[in-house]
Amino acid sequence: MKKLCLVLFVCCNISAYAQKQDYPIQPLAFTQVKLADHFWASRIETNRTVTIPASFERCKSTGRIKNFEMAAEGKGKFCTVYPFDDTDIYKTIEGASYSLAVHPDRQLDAYLDSLITVVGKAQEADGYLYTYRTIDPIHPGGAAGPERWMKENENSHELYCAGHMYEGAAAHFMATGKRNFLNIALKNADLLVQTFGPGKRAVAPGHEIVEMGLVRLYRITGKKEYLDLAKFFIDQRGKKAYNKKSKNVWENGTYYQDDKPVINQDEAEGHAVRAMYLYAGMADVAALTGDKQYLAAIDKIWDNMVGKKMYVQGSIGAVGDGERFGANYELPNATAYNETCAAIGSVFWNQRMFLLHGDSKYIDVLEKVLYNGLISGVGLDGKSFFYTNAMQIQDHFTHPDIERERSGWFVCSCCPTNVARLIPSIPGYIYAQNGKDVFVNLFISGTGSLKVNNKALQITQQNNYPWDGGLAFIINPASAMEMNLKIRIPGWAQNQAVPSDLYSYQQPLNKKVEIKVNGKPVEYQMEHGYAVISKKWKKGDKVEMTLPMDVQRVMASEKLPDDAGRVALQRGPLMYAAEWTDNGGKAANIIIPKNTAFTTQYEAGLLNGVTVLKAEVKAINVDTAKQTVSTENKTLTAIPYYAWANRGKGEMMVWFPEEVKFVDIISR
Amino acid sequence: MKKLCLVLFVCCNISAYAQKQDYPIQPLAFTQVKLADHFWASRIETNRTVTIPASFERCKSTGRIKNFEMAAEGKGKFCTVYPFDDTDIYKTIEGASYSLAVHPDRQLDAYLDSLITVVGKAQEADGYLYTYRTIDPIHPGGAAGPERWMKENENSHELYCAGHMYEGAAAHFMATGKRNFLNIALKNADLLVQTFGPGKRAVAPGHEIVEMGLVRLYRITGKKEYLDLAKFFIDQRGKKAYNKKSKNVWENGTYYQDDKPVINQDEAEGHAVRAMYLYAGMADVAALTGDKQYLAAIDKIWDNMVGKKMYVQGSIGAVGDGERFGANYELPNATAYNETCAAIGSVFWNQRMFLLHGDSKYIDVLEKVLYNGLISGVGLDGKSFFYTNAMQIQDHFTHPDIERERSGWFVCSCCPTNVARLIPSIPGYIYAQNGKDVFVNLFISGTGSLKVNNKALQITQQNNYPWDGGLAFIINPASAMEMNLKIRIPGWAQNQAVPSDLYSYQQPLNKKVEIKVNGKPVEYQMEHGYAVISKKWKKGDKVEMTLPMDVQRVMASEKLPDDAGRVALQRGPLMYAAEWTDNGGKAANIIIPKNTAFTTQYEAGLLNGVTVLKAEVKAINVDTAKQTVSTENKTLTAIPYYAWANRGKGEMMVWFPEEVKFVDIISR
Repeated sequence: MKKLCLVLFVCCNISAYAQKQDYPIQPLAFTQVKLADHFWASRIETNRTVTIPASFERCKSTGRIKNFEMAAEGKGKFCTVYPFDDTDIYKTIEGASYSLAVHPDRQLDAYLDSLITVVGKAQEADGYLYTYRTIDPIHPGGAAGPERWMKENENSHELYCAGHMYEGAAAHFMATGKRNFLNIALKNADLLVQTFGPGKRAVAPGHEIVEMGLVRLYRITGKKEYLDLAKFFIDQRGKKAYNKKSKNVWENGTYYQDDKPVINQDEAEGHAVRAMYLYAGMADVAALTGDKQYLAAIDKIWDNMVGKKMYVQGSIGAVGDGERFGANYELPNATAYNETCAAIGSVFWNQRMFLLHGDSKYIDVLEKVLYNGLISGVGLDGKSFFYTNAMQIQDHFTHPDIERERSGWFVCSCCPTNVARLIPSIPGYIYAQNGKDVFVNLFISGTGSLKVNNKALQITQQNNYPWDGGLAFIINPASAMEMNLKIRIPGWAQNQAVPSDLYSYQQPLNKKVEIKVNGKPVEYQMEHGYAVISKKWKKGDKVEMTLPMDVQRVMASEKLPDDAGRVALQRGPLMYAAEWTDNGGKAANIIIPKNTAFTTQYEAGLLNGVTVLKAEVKAINVDTAKQTVSTENKTLTAIPYYAWANRGKGEMMVWFPEEVKFVDIISR
Repeated sequence: MKKLCLVLFVCCNISAYAQKQDYPIQPLAFTQVKLADHFWASRIETNRTVTIPASFERCKSTGRIKNFEMAAEGKGKFCTVYPFDDTDIYKTIEGASYSLAVHPDRQLDAYLDSLITVVGKAQEADGYLYTYRTIDPIHPGGAAGPERWMKENENSHELYCAGHMYEGAAAHFMATGKRNFLNIALKNADLLVQTFGPGKRAVAPGHEIVEMGLVRLYRITGKKEYLDLAKFFIDQRGKKAYNKKSKNVWENGTYYQDDKPVINQDEAEGHAVRAMYLYAGMADVAALTGDKQYLAAIDKIWDNMVGKKMYVQGSIGAVGDGERFGANYELPNATAYNETCAAIGSVFWNQRMFLLHGDSKYIDVLEKVLYNGLISGVGLDGKSFFYTNAMQIQDHFTHPDIERERSGWFVCSCCPTNVARLIPSIPGYIYAQNGKDVFVNLFISGTGSLKVNNKALQITQQNNYPWDGGLAFIINPASAMEMNLKIRIPGWAQNQAVPSDLYSYQQPLNKKVEIKVNGKPVEYQMEHGYAVISKKWKKGDKVEMTLPMDVQRVMASEKLPDDAGRVALQRGPLMYAAEWTDNGGKAANIIIPKNTAFTTQYEAGLLNGVTVLKAEVKAINVDTAKQTVSTENKTLTAIPYYAWANRGKGEMMVWFPEEVKFVDIISR
């Protein structure tokens, strides 16, 4: 049983029952990929050995586990801050389960069982599980209201807790084959099915994720009611009476993606994490039902997000007040919010968009998020986290939303536990398959084991990505086989900084990416961003591809006033930043003149090994004693954006002026 | 009859009938003051000869007069933009009437009569007068709704139009003794009395002013229903259901000063002009009814405004989106809105607060507004206007709310016509009286003619204010009389930059202001900010007072982040600004180091004559060709704030850095 489950485990498409209708493309489960990648394997190991244990420790020390114990006893006082604090336990169990699946650990396995027992005891007889209410059904005049799901549309997060429970329980079941957590989740889901639906209660979930969670349970059980309920919940959006004229996003419903029915929505709006989970849930339901209206809506929303609302390092959710998307082109640097959870949600959604459409542009965004604005959310130590991901840090500028250094935990600690569950799943984003079409999406060394026409096929990647552009893929079919190898040629390697006109390269690349098979250049067709090599593959066939690793000067659309006249630096998939510590104590004073030449250098001892960029630039210095201001030549050192804030706190810049037209004098 | 009316004319307290209860202090009507003041007489003359004629011309050329003609004919299409465009005619008639009262002009008198005839023809049979609806009773599905006063709470401005009509009609009656406009107004007011009140319709006027207008009609007619209706309208506020949790000021009612009953309001909030007119109306009603709850409320609101929401040059209404007060301490320089009408409203309200309380702090604010942020709203040419009054202009910074140069007129032209009616009334703010107490509030040369115990008293001021601090007052009673002369000693002459801790002087003044009577220093008592000299006054007694005209460095409360580390310059009642044209083409690059010495110089040929400030300062310069930044010594020339933007457009600063800690590089 256990083994069967492992085989069936698919990263975001956990199917125990074959679905008649589903994503045309299926991802290769991360369990089928054995990493040998310097960049990611070390991060996954840190997540396993540091992040997950630290996360459990903090769930205990902050009282999150005690909440379950009190709920079981039906007495006490909810002892943490947020009604959704239960989810941190569910999410850490999910991450630990992913970890267990590829790295057996009897002690961890037993600990999960003990936790699940505590969780199960907190469940009410009919399946309801939400410690905030169960501990003290009287007190929640506040966040949850006197009756169940009464304030779901406001801030009770009851269905949000359920959704994370389902995600965690599904992962635990698929990783261990044990049904202890799954049964808790199913009992809860059955209560939802009894309670909500046509002719029963209706609510638009306040913080989406229950939709994705129900789909996971549907994939495991084949119970169509779960899928139907997911769709029912999605279709409840846009029915509440809001004041459409109001500019206040809570008043007009956009904060909740609730201002109009989802099929009429065309803009990435409101709370960014909620938005990502909704759009990912819509993709799931669209894949499983063939709903074309959902598809049309999320296609439009994606175009809006990537064309008008995404930072250059892939982050989303610019506005701190509401942790939300701003207006089109509202991407301020000084106050960028960029919640880590939103980046994680963007990975979920973009993977699903790829599985629907087979276009590499979704993976271009996914890769950008993954290598930049997502992993910036966790320190190299694996136990310090950013809730927000800044675009610039200036000594003189403070703002309540801006974090200058990572924290071990947060009162609202959604991001650390989301990191804990995302990192171990990354191998599941590398490969995907549609019959004889095998997609290579990410360039991560190691071996993926697929089946094409029921015949085994191994693909081994050998590279030093993202530092080097030279990639090799060794193709090992069990025996010779026809197969279409579809290797993603990243947009960034083809003059497309992003799949929109929001950002672009100042100097276009002219070379076509060259691909060799067994040492000989081949002509290849491009299909939706993929180089397609169709042939009869033999054991040991070697494909080589060299991506251009030039340092690119990225400029922003003129519609982004904060970036006008500025340049950002990119090399391969990585965006770069200048930190104070490499640049004489300051970074906000750097000007990168046009035509400055860059050199690159891999520094093994720096930040767990990074390629740094160097260039001769100018800087403006203030002598506060003499009260003079002057310009000097200096050498810029830039590091990958994801690695900032691992050496103390100080200035950091992503967008650099190319020339100086004025200065604003700051006197505080 | 005409003469009687002129004698009865009191600037803001037009009483034909003695009221049992009224302001304890009564202002001396501006008609009783003959100016001989370089500063103000020339402005009033420009207003008479340029502003008023230009205003009438524009009322005609923009179609505002045509609207009345079409309403009279009951056909056509409202041909201007705003439903309240009628008020520009009422306001210009008001200004022209003030002008007529002191400067007879047969041609102007006849023109007013012809206009009033046009206005009268537009009035409906029952007294209703609002061209927007009368022209086409069907069309106003938009701003006014299908029925009268249906959308008063939104944007119909029907009662706003009525209020300005009453103010204009009262002024015209008092100036000319003619009842033609007054009768129109009374007929309209009678319709309001029939329509609104206890047991009848109730509405909180959407844009206040009808309350003040009704009080004016009450003072002329003694008809108590007008006063009662003014109070009824004020008491309707705070009864509509708003969403109190919303942060949106339209949604939560604060935009309209409608979130709670006025007696519970304690913060200057919402649309700043609406707010001033409401608070002034409350003061009127409080004075006439003795309502202590109104008094308590406006006292608190005043403390809030002056303590937390007023710019250093007296302007209010910081936020452009809604032309409104921001939060406490929300006084940004870059985007300051500061509508000219709000400054005018502040003069109305502060005068009334003084009349209630007899405290000079209200006149301190009134003087600050008058000499700075109000008259900045009109160009020296008398025919160019600022709708908003900027706090800083930087070449590189643009914002839709920021005006860099004055305009001849606006689509919404409330400010120019408000200036036209305010300027000629200024002599009415100089003197006030409570029995034997005679207040000298403003230092404006000329002669005021009062009566103390029915005996004539003339006070002649001889000064060169605001340029010189030496003031002389010649007291000429008809015969020797006991009288308490109360001369305001401005807060600014006593270490109080404003009557709150929002702004203060860096270097305190140590001298007590010296007063001489007939050449001999006298000891005087201070009462509520007034030097009181009680004696038996004889013809030709001469009082001399010398105010310190040191250049003061003003600093802001630390709660104002935009001003932290910066200094503003004040001399006498005037705030100063640096304009590009006197400072080598730029102003935003100036640093005024601590301890810099200032020199002053009166320049008769500059800006109609101004005292300029000069000092050795530093500036930061960008060489855009060489791309270098450097610091240089230079001479600052600062001009009075009110005089900025009369010589083309360029940079302007009020708050200057005292030292440089950082610079922000601007590259666009």
